[in-house]
Amino acid sequence: MCVRRCVITVGDLGEFGVVNRITGRLPHSRAVILGPGDDAAMVSAPDGRVVVSTDLLLEGRHFRRDWSSGYDVGRKAAAQNLADVAAMGATPTSIVVGLGLPADLSLAWLDALTDGFGDECATVGASVAGGDVTRCDLVVLGVTALGDLGGRSPVLRSGARPGHVVAVAGRLGYAAAGWALLEAGARVDTPPLQEAVAGHRRPCPPYAMGPQAAELGASAMLDVSDGLLQDLGHVAEASGVRVELDPQAFAVGEPVAAAAKELGADPLEWVLTGGEDHALAAVFPPEVRLPSAWQVVGRVVEGDGVLVYGREIGRRGWDHFR
Amino acid sequence: MCVRRCVITVGDLGEFGVVNRITGRLPHSRAVILGPGDDAAMVSAPDGRVVVSTDLLLEGRHFRRDWSSGYDVGRKAAAQNLADVAAMGATPTSIVVGLGLPADLSLAWLDALTDGFGDECATVGASVAGGDVTRCDLVVLGVTALGDLGGRSPVLRSGARPGHVVAVAGRLGYAAAGWALLEAGARVDTPPLQEAVAGHRRPCPPYAMGPQAAELGASAMLDVSDGLLQDLGHVAEASGVRVELDPQAFAVGEPVAAAAKELGADPLEWVLTGGEDHALAAVFPPEVRLPSAWQVVGRVVEGDGVLVYGREIGRRGWDHFR
Repeated sequence: MCVRRCVITVGDLGEFGVVNRITGRLPHSRAVILGPGDDAAMVSAPDGRVVVSTDLLLEGRHFRRDWSSGYDVGRKAAAQNLADVAAMGATPTSIVVGLGLPADLSLAWLDALTDGFGDECATVGASVAGGDVTRCDLVVLGVTALGDLGGRSPVLRSGARPGHVVAVAGRLGYAAAGWALLEAGARVDTPPLQEAVAGHRRPCPPYAMGPQAAELGASAMLDVSDGLLQDLGHVAEASGVRVELDPQAFAVGEPVAAAAKELGADPLEWVLTGGEDHALAAVFPPEVRLPSAWQVVGRVVEGDGVLVYGREIGRRGWDHFR
Repeated sequence: MCVRRCVITVGDLGEFGVVNRITGRLPHSRAVILGPGDDAAMVSAPDGRVVVSTDLLLEGRHFRRDWSSGYDVGRKAAAQNLADVAAMGATPTSIVVGLGLPADLSLAWLDALTDGFGDECATVGASVAGGDVTRCDLVVLGVTALGDLGGRSPVLRSGARPGHVVAVAGRLGYAAAGWALLEAGARVDTPPLQEAVAGHRRPCPPYAMGPQAAELGASAMLDVSDGLLQDLGHVAEASGVRVELDPQAFAVGEPVAAAAKELGADPLEWVLTGGEDHALAAVFPPEVRLPSAWQVVGRVVEGDGVLVYGREIGRRGWDHFR
């Protein structure tokens, strides 16, 4: 019996109670023809091809429950998969989520997580089509996003050619700066520093720029998940070209600059190597007139690798096994 | 340096080495237009709708590495999702897999897991379209399967009507019997007992019977993952009917009977409540002439719940939080 303070947990509800709780909170988008509750969901794929991307997120490795709310974790987990779909030039239609949940997890945290999934999907007109729930000692999220190309060709990593320009849309360095502030235990008491921390907790991928880049004729594209240098290294390798970046061309966001000042760090390092902002990096033929959301930061030449300041400074980024 | 016994591990390869290792071993099916290596994969969805199901499998909860080989785990993880797709009446086209792997996991185990995914998919003409790899203290598998309905209507859980017949295709009770043998530490030295244990390690869902049932006009269908009583309880609830099972109608497999004899257990309990065999249970209008793969085991009447021996014996099955 609960006398003083009663926290309802996932274990109190049981598996089917948890599933009902989650599905009851989630809105449905039009693309989801059949939502949760059967063996499988059914999602519209008018293009006749479906774009699909999956990620596994683990408590302690990809997020910390003391640093991020359930809502933040839900938004971030959805965002990083929706961004992968957008980076192909597709419009996201839905996600499905496999949840590993501790029995003592509070229902409030689960509700917030659910709302985070739903709200992030809603920013692109998608919704949660289905999922799976199991008990686990730590929070584990397996998120899979689906998307539709609307008749467009997918934009791969392999189409960059010498003479093309490299451009980015969205934030760079925010998540890394926010993480560094939290890890240093810094006082986060000004709006720019708070925005950097918010950038770690919840990325803001420029989803609409993905299909836009495809329409504009982008020759290569990806979302920046492991750091710009490392990710553009994949483009260089897949395309058989060299990418030369102009460090002067990067507009360093005020939150990144403020965090760097606070910690005595180099803001450009976060911009070039910080992952998890899920900006889009794309390569365009030189004749393409780019909308203002795209910031030209480099060019494609003959050769290999990624060069900054005229030299290859390595593909510093996150390798999950080292 | 390795002098005596050198086990190459996942950690030795690093994240990108692991990804390359996995993708290098996997065959491609025709439905996978773009396989692993970009932000997202692209899979054919000629029907204009895509069926999608996801599951999270955890070491220690859903499998044990000392009881199952990597190959068995890969086949089982793929099978349980492909079966969900088949249970909608769809033909599986692909899976995507999120892998959490310990750094000290042997490369041999990972290779076997990969082959298990690939071989199980190959049984239905599907393949692994993409995935994600991250480090984790235990093996975590997030598997999502996609499928195509080929113009058919999906077979839901909600279409059962009084007067319809209940039939099953595939094995029942094998996985539960095998699990019981392993848990009891029984000597598994006869072919029937070995087959029961193999049934725990690797289910054999009757995939082709899913689309077949849809073509025959099944009014409801699901795959038996939590136990027949519990799963038919979902059909009863979703359809607003009662399901009456005839326990005499079940053909108890020889491996199940042998394991029951060995352990002094009731084989019918495993048949009725054992999960993880991923048989298909379907409901058909009475005029449908069923092929021999379908075994009629009950009927649908007015009311609610699932009855055996004329009484409701509960929906015993697996609840992950209790």
